[in-house]
Amino acid sequence: MPTDLYPVTRLADVREATERSGLGALLLTPGPDLRYVTGYDAMPLERLTCLAVPASGDPFLMVPRLELPAAEHSPASRLGIEFVPWDETDDPYAQVAARLGSLASVGLADRMWAMQSLRFRDAMPGAEQRLAGTVLRELRMRKSPAEAAALAEAGAAIDSVHNLVPGFLKAGRTEREVGKDIAEAIVAAGHERVDFVIVGSGPNGASPHHELSDRVIQAGEPVVVDIGGTMPTGYCSDSTRVYSVGEAPAEFVAYYAVLKRAQEAACDHVRPGVTCESVDAAAREVIEEAGFGDRFIHRTGHGIGLETHEEPYIVSGNTELIEPGFAFSIEPGIYLPGRHGARIEDIVICSETAGELLNNTTRELVIV
Amino acid sequence: MPTDLYPVTRLADVREATERSGLGALLLTPGPDLRYVTGYDAMPLERLTCLAVPASGDPFLMVPRLELPAAEHSPASRLGIEFVPWDETDDPYAQVAARLGSLASVGLADRMWAMQSLRFRDAMPGAEQRLAGTVLRELRMRKSPAEAAALAEAGAAIDSVHNLVPGFLKAGRTEREVGKDIAEAIVAAGHERVDFVIVGSGPNGASPHHELSDRVIQAGEPVVVDIGGTMPTGYCSDSTRVYSVGEAPAEFVAYYAVLKRAQEAACDHVRPGVTCESVDAAAREVIEEAGFGDRFIHRTGHGIGLETHEEPYIVSGNTELIEPGFAFSIEPGIYLPGRHGARIEDIVICSETAGELLNNTTRELVIV
Repeated sequence: MPTDLYPVTRLADVREATERSGLGALLLTPGPDLRYVTGYDAMPLERLTCLAVPASGDPFLMVPRLELPAAEHSPASRLGIEFVPWDETDDPYAQVAARLGSLASVGLADRMWAMQSLRFRDAMPGAEQRLAGTVLRELRMRKSPAEAAALAEAGAAIDSVHNLVPGFLKAGRTEREVGKDIAEAIVAAGHERVDFVIVGSGPNGASPHHELSDRVIQAGEPVVVDIGGTMPTGYCSDSTRVYSVGEAPAEFVAYYAVLKRAQEAACDHVRPGVTCESVDAAAREVIEEAGFGDRFIHRTGHGIGLETHEEPYIVSGNTELIEPGFAFSIEPGIYLPGRHGARIEDIVICSETAGELLNNTTRELVIV
Repeated sequence: MPTDLYPVTRLADVREATERSGLGALLLTPGPDLRYVTGYDAMPLERLTCLAVPASGDPFLMVPRLELPAAEHSPASRLGIEFVPWDETDDPYAQVAARLGSLASVGLADRMWAMQSLRFRDAMPGAEQRLAGTVLRELRMRKSPAEAAALAEAGAAIDSVHNLVPGFLKAGRTEREVGKDIAEAIVAAGHERVDFVIVGSGPNGASPHHELSDRVIQAGEPVVVDIGGTMPTGYCSDSTRVYSVGEAPAEFVAYYAVLKRAQEAACDHVRPGVTCESVDAAAREVIEEAGFGDRFIHRTGHGIGLETHEEPYIVSGNTELIEPGFAFSIEPGIYLPGRHGARIEDIVICSETAGELLNNTTRELVIV
C-alpha cells in the first residue's frame, strides 16, 4: 500500500479544518472517517475505539486494551498521538469527556452507531452533536493522486470479474448460483471484501437494488449485474453491466441503445466547473427525449472512495461544482416493471480537463 | 431459508414489548435489528430505509422508491404493513415524524448511523432518543429453534474452512497470502460475506485482534486463525483454532494445554441458571491457577446471532442468568507479547440442560 494513500500530514489538515468549522472536536469511531484520517482500518465493534481531534489540544486515540497491539501496528502509529487503552470494565465515554473538557459542540463520524453516539450524548451533555462529515467532506471529496490510483486499481479488479461473468451466466442456473461464483471471483480478483452482488434476471432487472434470488435464469433474458467490493487499500469498486442469455427482446435492445447513449453523454459532460446536477441532467435528457423519462427512477450517481456511496451525489438539486479529483459513479437506468431493466455504471474521476473512466469493459449488451 | 427463521408474528411481539418498555416507537434502519424484526436484509445506505414500530398505531416501512421492489420481494412483504416510498428530493425524516406525531421517546436501532440519528433528532425534537436494543435484546438473546439451526449451519460452514487451513499454512508464505485463501474458502463454504480473517503468526498471535500482515510465517511458529462470516440466513460464524508450522516451542505447548483445559471448563460450566460472569470465571480460574492470569486480557466471550458480537457478553460483572437459547462464544486466550499467543474459540448454545458446541473441529494444537 503506498504510504501516501494515508499521509501523516492529513491529521493536521483535519485539525485545522475542525478549528475553522467552529466544532470543538471530532469524535471518529471505526469506519471510513477514522480510516481516512489515520489509515487505521479498525473493525466497527461494540467496544469503543475513538479518535478524538480537538480543535485546540492534542488528538488521542481511545482504544480497548486488547486492540492496542493492532492499533500500534496500524498506520495510526505513525501519527505520534497518544493511544489511551481502556480495560473491559472501564467507561471509555467518560474518559473521552474528561480529557476533552467542556465543549459547545462535537462532530461525530457520520457512521457512528447510535449505541455510541447516545453514550457520548450522555457523557457530554453540554456538547451539541453534529456530523464530522461537515468538516471531512471537503477533504474526502478531493481525491489525491494516491487515492485516484487506488480507485483505478479497484476499477481494474472489478473489470476482471465482469470479464468472467459470461462464463457464469447460463439459462437454467439461478441468480443465487451465479452470484456465488461472482462473490468468489470478487475475492479472487484481490478485493478484501464483497460489498454487494446484484444479479437481476428478466423482471428482477427492473428493481435497481434487487440482489439475488432463487429465480432460474431463462433463455432470451437480459440480466443486470451490479457488483462491487473493497480492496485492501480500503477503496471500493462498483460497476454494472448488462448481459443477455441468448438474443434479447427487440424492445429491450431498443431502449438499451438509448441508455448507452445517455450514459456516454453524462460521462462526456464531466469536467471541472460543471455542477453535479448538470451531469445528472445530461443523462436524463437523452432518456427523456426517447420517452423513457418516467422509467429512470433514481439519481445518476454517487461519489465513491472509502465508501461505495459518499459525496458528491450526482442528483438534481446538487449545485456543487465538480473539481479535479472528484470521483463518482455514472449509472443511469431504464426499468420496465414486470418485464426487464438495464443500467450501465462506470466510475469516473475528474482530471484537470475531463472525466476519466476507471471501468473499461465493453458497454455493449453482452450476448452469452 | 426456513420461513420460521423470521416469523411474521415477531412484529406483534416487538410492538407489545415496545409498549411495555414505555418507548413511543422504535425506529429501525437497515442492520440486524431491522432484519430480526422483518427478515428484510436491506443494505445500510445513506438513503433512509426505516421501519417505524409505534407502541400504539400501525407500523410502517419508509423506503426509497428505488428500493421499493426489493422491499416488496423481501420477507417484510409478508407482514401486511404499509410501505411508504419516498422520492430522491423528499425529506423522509420529516415524513416519519409527521406520521408518528408527538412522542416523548423513540428507540433507535443500535447501529443507526449518526447521519440518520441526528436527522431524526432534528425532525422530532421532543422525542428523547434511546436504544431499540433495550427492547429487542430480550427477544434477540433467546434464539428460536430455527435460529439455533441457522447458527449450527454457520458453525459447520466455518468448521469446513478450518479443515482446509492446514493446506494453506506453510513456512515461507505471508499471513496475507494465507488470509486470501481463507477468505475465498469462507465464501466457497456458503457464507454470503467474509466478516474477518485473523492470521496471527508468531508474535502477531499475541495481539488478539491482529488481522493480516505481510509477515512471512516461519517454521516452528504457532499461528492463531480466527475467522468468521455471515451466511445467507443472516446468521454469523466465528471460530478460532491454533496451528503450528512444524514443532511448536515447548513453553507454548505447555500453556496451550492450560488454555485447552480452561476453554473446556467454561464450556462444561454452561447450563440454564448460571450467570454469564460465572462462565468467564470458569475459564479464568484455570488460567490464573496456572500463573497466566495477567496474560488473559479480554472477556471470555460474546453473544452471536445476526451480529458477530451481540448480547449476552461473557464478562466479569454480567450477572445475567443464562437461559435455553442463549448463544455465545467461549474463547479464552493466553498472550505473551513479543513471543506468541493462543486462543481457542467455539460457539456454544445453551439447551434445556447444558451447553451444546456448534464448532466441532479438533481443539488440539494442529501441527502442519
